[in-house]
Amino acid sequence: MHLGSLLHPRGIAVVGASDTAGKAGYALTRTLSGFDGDLYPVNPAGGTIAGRTAYPAVTDIGAPVDLAVLAVPPRAVPGVLADCGKAGVTAAIVCSGGFAEAGADGAALQDTVTAVAREHGIRLLGPNTSGYVNPADGVFATFVPSVVDLPAGPAAIVAQSGGVNLALCFLAAAEGLGLRLGVGLGNAVDVGFADVLDHLAADDATAVIGLHVEGVPDGRRLVDAVARTAVGKPVVVLKVGRTDVGDFARSHTGAITGPFELTRAALAQAGAVVVDDPAELVDALRALAAGRVPATRRPGVGVVTGQAGPGLIIADALAAAGVPVPALSTASRARVGELLPPLTYQDNPVDTGRPSETFPEVAATVAADPGIDALAVYALDEPDALDLAATVRVIGRSAGGAVPVLVGSGGLPAVLDARQRELDLPLFRSPDRLARAMSALVADSAAAYRLARRADGWRPAGRTLGPEPVDEHRAKVLLAEFGLTVPRRYACDTRADAHHALEALGGPVVVKIRDAGITHKSDVDGVRVGVRTAADLDDALDAIDRSASALGTVPRYLVERQAPAGPELIVGATRDAVFGPAVLLALGGVGVELAADPILRLAPLSDVDTEDMVAALPERLLAGYRGAVPVDRAAVAAAVRSVAAVLLHHDDVAEVEVNPLRLTRDGPVALDAVIVLEQPAGEKEVRG
Amino acid sequence: MHLGSLLHPRGIAVVGASDTAGKAGYALTRTLSGFDGDLYPVNPAGGTIAGRTAYPAVTDIGAPVDLAVLAVPPRAVPGVLADCGKAGVTAAIVCSGGFAEAGADGAALQDTVTAVAREHGIRLLGPNTSGYVNPADGVFATFVPSVVDLPAGPAAIVAQSGGVNLALCFLAAAEGLGLRLGVGLGNAVDVGFADVLDHLAADDATAVIGLHVEGVPDGRRLVDAVARTAVGKPVVVLKVGRTDVGDFARSHTGAITGPFELTRAALAQAGAVVVDDPAELVDALRALAAGRVPATRRPGVGVVTGQAGPGLIIADALAAAGVPVPALSTASRARVGELLPPLTYQDNPVDTGRPSETFPEVAATVAADPGIDALAVYALDEPDALDLAATVRVIGRSAGGAVPVLVGSGGLPAVLDARQRELDLPLFRSPDRLARAMSALVADSAAAYRLARRADGWRPAGRTLGPEPVDEHRAKVLLAEFGLTVPRRYACDTRADAHHALEALGGPVVVKIRDAGITHKSDVDGVRVGVRTAADLDDALDAIDRSASALGTVPRYLVERQAPAGPELIVGATRDAVFGPAVLLALGGVGVELAADPILRLAPLSDVDTEDMVAALPERLLAGYRGAVPVDRAAVAAAVRSVAAVLLHHDDVAEVEVNPLRLTRDGPVALDAVIVLEQPAGEKEVRG
Repeated sequence: MHLGSLLHPRGIAVVGASDTAGKAGYALTRTLSGFDGDLYPVNPAGGTIAGRTAYPAVTDIGAPVDLAVLAVPPRAVPGVLADCGKAGVTAAIVCSGGFAEAGADGAALQDTVTAVAREHGIRLLGPNTSGYVNPADGVFATFVPSVVDLPAGPAAIVAQSGGVNLALCFLAAAEGLGLRLGVGLGNAVDVGFADVLDHLAADDATAVIGLHVEGVPDGRRLVDAVARTAVGKPVVVLKVGRTDVGDFARSHTGAITGPFELTRAALAQAGAVVVDDPAELVDALRALAAGRVPATRRPGVGVVTGQAGPGLIIADALAAAGVPVPALSTASRARVGELLPPLTYQDNPVDTGRPSETFPEVAATVAADPGIDALAVYALDEPDALDLAATVRVIGRSAGGAVPVLVGSGGLPAVLDARQRELDLPLFRSPDRLARAMSALVADSAAAYRLARRADGWRPAGRTLGPEPVDEHRAKVLLAEFGLTVPRRYACDTRADAHHALEALGGPVVVKIRDAGITHKSDVDGVRVGVRTAADLDDALDAIDRSASALGTVPRYLVERQAPAGPELIVGATRDAVFGPAVLLALGGVGVELAADPILRLAPLSDVDTEDMVAALPERLLAGYRGAVPVDRAAVAAAVRSVAAVLLHHDDVAEVEVNPLRLTRDGPVALDAVIVLEQPAGEKEVRG
Repeated sequence: MHLGSLLHPRGIAVVGASDTAGKAGYALTRTLSGFDGDLYPVNPAGGTIAGRTAYPAVTDIGAPVDLAVLAVPPRAVPGVLADCGKAGVTAAIVCSGGFAEAGADGAALQDTVTAVAREHGIRLLGPNTSGYVNPADGVFATFVPSVVDLPAGPAAIVAQSGGVNLALCFLAAAEGLGLRLGVGLGNAVDVGFADVLDHLAADDATAVIGLHVEGVPDGRRLVDAVARTAVGKPVVVLKVGRTDVGDFARSHTGAITGPFELTRAALAQAGAVVVDDPAELVDALRALAAGRVPATRRPGVGVVTGQAGPGLIIADALAAAGVPVPALSTASRARVGELLPPLTYQDNPVDTGRPSETFPEVAATVAADPGIDALAVYALDEPDALDLAATVRVIGRSAGGAVPVLVGSGGLPAVLDARQRELDLPLFRSPDRLARAMSALVADSAAAYRLARRADGWRPAGRTLGPEPVDEHRAKVLLAEFGLTVPRRYACDTRADAHHALEALGGPVVVKIRDAGITHKSDVDGVRVGVRTAADLDDALDAIDRSASALGTVPRYLVERQAPAGPELIVGATRDAVFGPAVLLALGGVGVELAADPILRLAPLSDVDTEDMVAALPERLLAGYRGAVPVDRAAVAAAVRSVAAVLLHHDDVAEVEVNPLRLTRDGPVALDAVIVLEQPAGEKEVRG
């Protein structure tokens, strides 16, 4: 294994080891002192540290060392690493800060460190990290003392920040979740998310993986590693940086999004479960470590509660997360009706009223329902009235036994600790935590379904469109070649041509300025709708001529058949600096960009991806908004694919935007289209 | 005190007491058995129950009883309550379900129960509730056994659901927060939120109050009770029912909102802190029980961390919650710069790198900064490097000592339990929980500021507009009288009048159908913009004539000066069935109603309310969207007040909607206005 000497070392040198309390090298030496392989303190002063002989330098050890942990000032790091290389050390952790995160000098030093490590073939974790913990092997290569009591178990944490790594490890332990590994990547000059994920994918002792992501330089590499890993085991991601604003793109396709949402969407598309906070990460890992729901397009959840109020909290949280809670089959309802008094709520969720002895069989009946893929059970701790562990056993013996169950309860900590010991499953201690853990279980199942149908990776097309800028007319020709419906229209160079076009098309028509340099035609009075007469047309052409004159260009016109009314969407494709080709679907209309959450994915897109994008539009729009016909979902999905295809097939297309895509009775029509080409550096210019 | 015999009884009868394990009456008798007042089991069979003499009926007890707790079948409740009345019992809890929540028969029975209680002057908690806990008085009037170990303390919980009440009490206890009271209201036929809040407002032992709200029949009563209570102590609310859709109003002002968001907005307006989940409720209560931030318009938060990654999580969560984290003063930055090595991040948040001995003074310096009203400190547990309790003491002795401090740390539970014992403050065990607790502290301070300036309550105006329906022209006349700017226009009854209007106004004008029965004029082709010539006008009038003919009405016209371009808002006022007059501000434009969160408040509005509403608009709009001038906030606030005033001044106005309110260079202009009058039952009709 590539990261074997880093993560499963047999011999460890602590460089900067110290007996002075308060120093990082002191704490490091102590946390590592329980390691049952060979541990070598290194300090220029030599002597004895933590009861072991200290060596002046790594080269003095004279025995095989896999891993060197460095707690030395940043300036000393390159020399120590070179020593390590000479001594045959193949992995190192640099805990010190003061590198790229600390300005230009630090960045230069970081480059030196990276080069030295590469020269000597050393896999480097950090710099600027707290290291890692590997409880099963007794390796606690970090400087917070209580890590040595972290329990071993099935979960791996990979955090961008060393501090967050430890915070997450402690939270996991507090919930009874043991760790296979907890790694803080720090500045990640060598070992990054992809390396650790590939290592964990192949590690049988790792059952579930939690990631903490701030931002990465190569998003595709992260996403592809997640996809490779998630095939075999669940990957749960906490993305931080919600409030950052990025430069997703030049036009307002970019202005309405940011890397936070794109990162989340891309990771979910690659098979990860994306969560909102550390507690949710830990609960998701606990739920998934106990078992996954098989890959399913839209898994259905059953809910059985002993109290209606917590049931409402669960149903509310599941609905907010978009988790289906389907009605039970007639047969299941009949059986539940036999088991419960008539006053209780017998659909899904099923509330039993105060639990009676039929509770386990009610739960088993719901679990066995054909529409149910996972079951959530919640009841306050009332040992006289209900035994949750026995309930789980009854479900296990019944036809519902194949369905994963999550259990929640309320009671004092000591009581719930006792219940947890009786269960083979994680116990969730509030109804909303149960619901969010269930949402994660369902998200993992849907992600696995999506992942199995993932589109092939992206590579350059070897084809270009430029160098001439692309005007609206040509953009529409191209999009039509890729299957998009565009209005009948004429590209006109003269006013006379425009008048012929009006005659040929009949009114009403839309008249627009045709100039590849203008992205927002409305902003320069370059669009006139509802033109029916020659007089109207002259008026419109006058306005365009004035705009062109103001911009110093020759006026040219586009005259096109006006489409019928209908709701409008925006469909865009762009090249994100971090993730490469990305696609956006959003509600249209001026002002929406201030309010709506755009729906984002990386390109290329699978059929599941485009279906999911369309399904994420507001339900009221899809159903037929204000008298409109229901949205033709397949046609909108096809339009998204067309826009993506134009970008994917031409390496010099920076951005494609159809705004609006109008949803007419006859299907979606691209009323406007912009294609922006990559510009050579120094020629960038924005007009309009 | 009105609820004294209910919540602080000296004698308690348990009706339906039982020695049969599994029965509610068994559990109830046991949980109450530690009560050190007089406890009387009541059971028709008599005998001995839980070691006490059982009485066949309440009337047989023959000693003073304040409270009867009923665990009897629903049909038996009226008779038992009548007995209680005869025996001089003044308060009762009905735990049984099977009342209004169980259908028509149950509702009838509930009416009977309510009438019997009223007849005998009995204050009734329930039915359909788990009762309440009052640990200090040793009253555990509920049937979940481990409640008897709930600790006494400063927090009161008032939950709509009995099950949620206990779940929240247990969560509070798990976080070390003791309880003054935990009440489940159940069906609340008599004792409701307002009664308990008024009781708690006057109770010196209650420091903080947490509410769980599903839905209430009289929202104004709840909101007014919250306002009375929040003057003296913090009120934190968890509102459940996010995914319900209500019938806020008839037009699409209603269609874009629902009671969930209105309830949250109304409670915050009344001085409450509104949270999203049970964990956040408990953390908010813990933070607020330790101390409030004085009432401040926009309190500033300082953040000092020992690790940058958790600091980013904190900053992210605070930013998402809209909490200001202001830059430090030059003096504070200079001092922090002296205390920290140059590599650390020295603005706010301040990250110290691995904590050194200067950490306490860094924290004290930030706390003393003039822009800082509360301080959040987070560091992983590294006892060699940092003593959090000592840090808090140093801040307390410094100029920052007046500023509330919240502390967070990461470590194993036993370690953090020890740290918690060293602190006088609640310790938050993850960075995001610290951030959300801090958000609650800040929200409470801002709510107190708002509450001190709350507008007077609402009462009928004694004036009407009807019965004639109000057309757009008259609506604009009215709105103009209340200060709103409307376009110059002519109400025309004939086509000739319309042509005169065009001449008088000059083009371009907007021509609209004028018919009080049509709410959405665009949907019936009743609006034509950009009309400049007589021919254009005839075309527009033709379209209107056709629409009127199709609707079977006489065509009338409105011809008005077309306003310059600009972003658009929607301003509406309506009478909510639960809350009464309510006001809405939202982004305008077709399609936005599918996406944007409307900003809601109850009317009447204070100046702070309207300022807050405007400030909740997207920052990019306020700053001057796509070349527009920055929004005139005061003018938009005034427009909101005008719309509210038209509704508040006329008791028969059901709804006022200005859509759009266009934001021009010269200020906001109401381009369209609809006033809907209350219609007598049976005459409701919707057209257009």
